[in-house]
Amino acid sequence: MASRPYNLYAGPAILPLEVMEQAREELLDFAGTGLSILESSHRSPGYAEVNDSARENLRRLLGVPENYSILFLQGGASLQFGMIPMNFLRGGEADYVNTGAWSKKAIKEAGLFGEVNIAGSSEDRNFCYVPDPDKLELSPDAKYVHICSNETIGGIRYNRFPRTGEVPLVADMSSEICSRKIDVSGFDLIYAGAQKNLGPAGVTIVIISDRLLESCPDGLTTMLDYRTHAEKDSNYNTPPVFSIYIVGLVLKWLEKQGGIAAIEERNNRKAALIYDLIDSSDFYRGTADPGDRSTMNITFRLPSEELEAEFIAGGKKAGFIGLKGHRSVGGCRASIYNAFPEEGVQALVEFMREFEKKN
Amino acid sequence: MASRPYNLYAGPAILPLEVMEQAREELLDFAGTGLSILESSHRSPGYAEVNDSARENLRRLLGVPENYSILFLQGGASLQFGMIPMNFLRGGEADYVNTGAWSKKAIKEAGLFGEVNIAGSSEDRNFCYVPDPDKLELSPDAKYVHICSNETIGGIRYNRFPRTGEVPLVADMSSEICSRKIDVSGFDLIYAGAQKNLGPAGVTIVIISDRLLESCPDGLTTMLDYRTHAEKDSNYNTPPVFSIYIVGLVLKWLEKQGGIAAIEERNNRKAALIYDLIDSSDFYRGTADPGDRSTMNITFRLPSEELEAEFIAGGKKAGFIGLKGHRSVGGCRASIYNAFPEEGVQALVEFMREFEKKN
Repeated sequence: MASRPYNLYAGPAILPLEVMEQAREELLDFAGTGLSILESSHRSPGYAEVNDSARENLRRLLGVPENYSILFLQGGASLQFGMIPMNFLRGGEADYVNTGAWSKKAIKEAGLFGEVNIAGSSEDRNFCYVPDPDKLELSPDAKYVHICSNETIGGIRYNRFPRTGEVPLVADMSSEICSRKIDVSGFDLIYAGAQKNLGPAGVTIVIISDRLLESCPDGLTTMLDYRTHAEKDSNYNTPPVFSIYIVGLVLKWLEKQGGIAAIEERNNRKAALIYDLIDSSDFYRGTADPGDRSTMNITFRLPSEELEAEFIAGGKKAGFIGLKGHRSVGGCRASIYNAFPEEGVQALVEFMREFEKKN
Repeated sequence: MASRPYNLYAGPAILPLEVMEQAREELLDFAGTGLSILESSHRSPGYAEVNDSARENLRRLLGVPENYSILFLQGGASLQFGMIPMNFLRGGEADYVNTGAWSKKAIKEAGLFGEVNIAGSSEDRNFCYVPDPDKLELSPDAKYVHICSNETIGGIRYNRFPRTGEVPLVADMSSEICSRKIDVSGFDLIYAGAQKNLGPAGVTIVIISDRLLESCPDGLTTMLDYRTHAEKDSNYNTPPVFSIYIVGLVLKWLEKQGGIAAIEERNNRKAALIYDLIDSSDFYRGTADPGDRSTMNITFRLPSEELEAEFIAGGKKAGFIGLKGHRSVGGCRASIYNAFPEEGVQALVEFMREFEKKN
């Protein structure tokens, strides 16, 4: 068996080893049924327990109020980019903040369903910062305000969220969900593809307030109406059983780590190790403004593209994979999601120091 | 470890044991990377090979002509019920044949996007037969004709398909794809949730002709436009990596069984074992008209509901799970998909004989 490298990919991303070991352990015998979870009916009692406990565990971990539904959908954040305006924009206007490629994709889809007001943008400086949440140009008539709370490509995140009063705040949290405490009641809709911090590809988490849910329009095709899934506890049609099962195991692992507060502390420590090195070095240069730095995706440059290529290749040889920045911006990136171990960050920092010395 | 029961559920359904053994074997080390497939990037070379080989294998097995695209989507057949009329109906009219609950769901969604003409129906006899494909009332102006080629609930299937001339024929083959030879060139779109004959829940197969693909309209949200997925080889956004990986393993298993012709022969033998017993018995009564019987879902009744309940409970005790008919029709059902072993059918027939003797 090949030795396990340090997986720094932006997503699908590293999962806790013990989760995968448990999945392997019970892959041929799920919940004492003698069947694999892969061939288990979504109407079976065993799966009902998987579905319910994943949902309730997420509710507990994130402190999701009772007047919110938690849904397990398919299609990734990319389908949410369209489903949100399809349900809630409908010819009206909405405010979108543009903080990078993922925001832009959401904006493009919204434009198909109504008027999009760019309430703030950091495009002027290549998305290296988050526009001041208190200085957004919000429209009084907006159906909702949309943000991407953490942009994987630029490596930035909101440290404070916009206050939108009665206007629903909608956030794409794909790349940071469950990495830090958030006040769910400040949002009306949070969505996240699972494949970064919560599980494998194939399931999308949606947390939606009752008041937004009630505003879903009639006449949409059944699968694109959020109410369909809320009313049937995400079991209206066959759900992605195995992906939800793994999300459930990851959530249990998260609880065992001490919950969100503990994982946030660890994430802060992990990120600080790399940022401290960057800040104390003339060789590495962080690309995000310090006040808006992500703890999940750490983006940096080296003195030249040649050195970057050498660094990425050398890293791979030394067991660090996925250090290449997104193709649209170049440079280097270390994605250190919840499951990325602290000793892996220490090893990476050590490697970075050595590389600097040699060059 | 619990002993492996005979899984007769309608779906998610039995998978080949050797596929799951292989998945378990390599769950912590995919393609020599030292990483799990669960945490592997969809842009990695290892996944590219999974995606390409699954697609090409399906093309070879089903004889899909080169002027068709094979897509791996999310959302199940239920999302296809909406996506098809959203793309191809658009205010026009379409012909739908109503052969049961799944047809009805498709019809309901189509009604949101245009006029639906019921070209044939077997509702008069509780969907126990397929309307004569040569006697459908087809509209000359239909954008397409839609059928469900095998209805899991009624246990019926088309043995001949409608000839629709220049009008595209669209078929939901969720519950029988790859169970028998079909002439793909007679269809313009075939779709199937994988979780019956091809893999776990979480991926939907779509086979679509170039001419239909070219007729997708502009202005749909990106994820609901078939062209998005065709142009990017089902890798536009993060696909359900693990589900596609398992589909790939199932397709390799299918090839090892001798391909579709061999599996069809085996399926015919398996179904005949049960139908022969039913036909030679006064105790068991098949509910589908003999000429339209499915080889995948075998539906039957016993002399009373009490005996049915006893049969289902006794079957479960003897290791046959999932014998209960769909809640909407009652009775009994044995779903014997490709992966259901011949010896399992023999054992079931033996159990049925014994049960008849005792009652």
